[in-house]
Amino acid sequence: MKGAPRHAGLLEGEVRVVNLGLRSFADSIRAAGGAAVHVDWRPPAGGDVELARILESLEDENGSGWREPIASANAAALERLLAAEPRVIGIGRADAVIPRMDAETVLHAGPPVAWEDMCGPMRGAVIGGLLYEELAASAEEAAELAASGRIRFAPCHEHQAVGPMAGVITASMPVWIVENGAFGNRAFATLNEGLGKVLRYGAYSEEVVVRLVWMREVLAPLLAKALRAHGPLDLRSLLAQALQMGDEGHNRNRAATSLFIRELAPHLVRLTARRDDVARVFEFLNGNDHFTLNLSMPAAKCALDAAAEAPGSSLVTVMARNGTEFGVRLAGTGARWFTAPAPRVDGLYFPGYGPQDAAPDIGDSAITETGGYGGFAMAAAPAIVQFVGGSPERALETTRRMAKITLGESPVYRIPALGFRGTPTGIDALRVVETGILPAINTGIAHKDPGVGMIGAGLVTPPFECFAQAVQALAQTLDTRKE
Amino acid sequence: MKGAPRHAGLLEGEVRVVNLGLRSFADSIRAAGGAAVHVDWRPPAGGDVELARILESLEDENGSGWREPIASANAAALERLLAAEPRVIGIGRADAVIPRMDAETVLHAGPPVAWEDMCGPMRGAVIGGLLYEELAASAEEAAELAASGRIRFAPCHEHQAVGPMAGVITASMPVWIVENGAFGNRAFATLNEGLGKVLRYGAYSEEVVVRLVWMREVLAPLLAKALRAHGPLDLRSLLAQALQMGDEGHNRNRAATSLFIRELAPHLVRLTARRDDVARVFEFLNGNDHFTLNLSMPAAKCALDAAAEAPGSSLVTVMARNGTEFGVRLAGTGARWFTAPAPRVDGLYFPGYGPQDAAPDIGDSAITETGGYGGFAMAAAPAIVQFVGGSPERALETTRRMAKITLGESPVYRIPALGFRGTPTGIDALRVVETGILPAINTGIAHKDPGVGMIGAGLVTPPFECFAQAVQALAQTLDTRKE
Repeated sequence: MKGAPRHAGLLEGEVRVVNLGLRSFADSIRAAGGAAVHVDWRPPAGGDVELARILESLEDENGSGWREPIASANAAALERLLAAEPRVIGIGRADAVIPRMDAETVLHAGPPVAWEDMCGPMRGAVIGGLLYEELAASAEEAAELAASGRIRFAPCHEHQAVGPMAGVITASMPVWIVENGAFGNRAFATLNEGLGKVLRYGAYSEEVVVRLVWMREVLAPLLAKALRAHGPLDLRSLLAQALQMGDEGHNRNRAATSLFIRELAPHLVRLTARRDDVARVFEFLNGNDHFTLNLSMPAAKCALDAAAEAPGSSLVTVMARNGTEFGVRLAGTGARWFTAPAPRVDGLYFPGYGPQDAAPDIGDSAITETGGYGGFAMAAAPAIVQFVGGSPERALETTRRMAKITLGESPVYRIPALGFRGTPTGIDALRVVETGILPAINTGIAHKDPGVGMIGAGLVTPPFECFAQAVQALAQTLDTRKE
Repeated sequence: MKGAPRHAGLLEGEVRVVNLGLRSFADSIRAAGGAAVHVDWRPPAGGDVELARILESLEDENGSGWREPIASANAAALERLLAAEPRVIGIGRADAVIPRMDAETVLHAGPPVAWEDMCGPMRGAVIGGLLYEELAASAEEAAELAASGRIRFAPCHEHQAVGPMAGVITASMPVWIVENGAFGNRAFATLNEGLGKVLRYGAYSEEVVVRLVWMREVLAPLLAKALRAHGPLDLRSLLAQALQMGDEGHNRNRAATSLFIRELAPHLVRLTARRDDVARVFEFLNGNDHFTLNLSMPAAKCALDAAAEAPGSSLVTVMARNGTEFGVRLAGTGARWFTAPAPRVDGLYFPGYGPQDAAPDIGDSAITETGGYGGFAMAAAPAIVQFVGGSPERALETTRRMAKITLGESPVYRIPALGFRGTPTGIDALRVVETGILPAINTGIAHKDPGVGMIGAGLVTPPFECFAQAVQALAQTLDTRKE
């Protein structure tokens, strides 16, 4: 064959292919009966030349990490994040404890969004919130009021608060007061209503409002008294135990909720209260495995807020969705939001529902992943795949993959199945952009129309675009362009 | 080298050894700096020629299974075992509900044992039981009475009962009544006292007796009433959930205990009882993560009893220890015990204690492994290695290994980390003898002296001898010798 053209015989005999990048190429070759090995390779910075140049300019001399001041800023931010000591210290009325909260303010999940841009479940929750506050007598009235400009809408995240799904918080709602014992800052979240027809999924029927009133009038006062008798509840310890009991702290909270109940039970019983009210509280708690989601969320929020002000740091301090847009914040760019259209959730649906019924990704609950658990701790909760889809192997693989985009591991939240390795904690936006590996988020699925509620649960990843914008903005703060 | 003796050059140059069987040989070669590969090989039937001949005579024609009537008998026994529907239906006084129980009878763990042969913790528990029943005023008096012959000692297992560690049950003790809904048979067990200085570990000080009296006078009546209001409690469902929450149902019961508390809480609260008594019940339950061990044990007992009468079956229906001997029973040999000296436990000790302080293996709690969970479900409870020793990898490997000596897998008790595979269930004594693979048991460790209590927890395997005897006896019932 000497002197023959290089490609001679290339396609003679059996063809074997090594495929880089898009898996579908390899799949189609296999489908056609060919042999193909797939190599999961992605171009740096998603193939964006400008981004790639930015990343290069931010690398340290030996290209193994990021240059100063990023390296030091990230180390400091991670240290503060891991040092957090979240604990529940009480329950208060939203307008009494949340900064800049009043009767005309409605807080919501995700980045800022105007009424006219809100998705169905968000509008439904706003309507339900206004009915609950008796600011409107009907859904129509509520919608008019919401559109009138007389209601001030603001992200929970801009008020030291977080809310699952629609995340609507109104003035008279009782909220958990969670304090970061290490730094003294606080975070707030409503009490969890349960699953199905609930406000946070956009339902606003009478049963929804009646439940919210009962939670304000009976549940919250009793829990607040029991908590006072118990003393501050250490959420770090609660979560650490729950992660050894099959929870991941976002979509699986059965263990944490069980531990919460048995811990407060003696104090609830000792209260001078109507026996039937206390019994109904226990029934409500026992019927709601997600009750402590609204504790694991502010636990992460107050931990991340303490790490939020770190000039130069590429630590992700917020991932939140309003059902219209997905928003991200970095420690190095402070309060600025970097947004892109909210993605669809890949999940399991309740009987009678499907993807065509689903609203886009929504909720502040991704704060759990931002804080180092939830989807990042899926290896601790293999049973969750029955709820969000996937396989136990995928759960393990997800946690391992997240370690490639995080700054460190939690010394407290450990995963037995991974040899008690700490959960991957502290998302590095630069690593996300460099590797193209997106944060894995477990989430619920709301119906796209107002008034329906939850229709499933699943897995979702943020838009790459949010991180690309964030990294570009961070680079500008470092004047990398001048180099 | 032609014509040179075969072994010529064998020991020239570097020696490499492939070691079969005893690992210690390979270890010593490595210790001496040599290279050795260890192959974990065991001769069939532990190298016992007589046993090997028996196994051969019991194989089916193609040598892949056991011949009739064993195969059919095992299939039938396994079917009954897996069909069990254990549920708690109430709490009763031992002498009122346990067959052939009276004031002069003291039930104990394991196979039959006389007072003079009892180990320290068993004697301590007997002394405490007699003090609790006010049949003696001092430990000395109690010991005299126990030795006098006026007390009838009998295994719990011969009274449809099971007891952890010393397993002492006396006439006035409250016991769980667990019914097998599928077959109507019942099993009984005391209420769990907690850890540390407790009767079942051989402690009999005043605090121990005072606690037992409180359990009889306050705890048991309140739980019985709450249970009546709740209705029968499905233990199969409770255990199935707990195995997805990090429990294995023997040495880790934190999840099951948490679920038990939240399930009964509303009913406990609604009782017309003193608020402080109810609060103390919640405090006791919250302080005792092993509370439901005494439910998972009778759940397995009533399941195995329903499979116990199966002529020709090599299913193990009992593994139990009295601290002096380890005893085994087979479905094919009925009530007959096959015993050997109780082994030592390989475990982790509380500060200040070590192997030299430990009593031999003791307790009926191995009924959980016999029933298909406990050590057999270790893969579901990787965090347990912090309590009993070993590594999470070993936990997974243990469950996989047990599948080699069991007749089937549970359709109900599933392990997420193993792709929701059912727990290996129904020990086949013939496979144990054939493979030399011994059942893996998680257990607590009692101090060897009476009156001290728990000093650790660990892992243990039964003596091979018990299974060898059982297999020989089973073969005799099949007249294999005549063939």
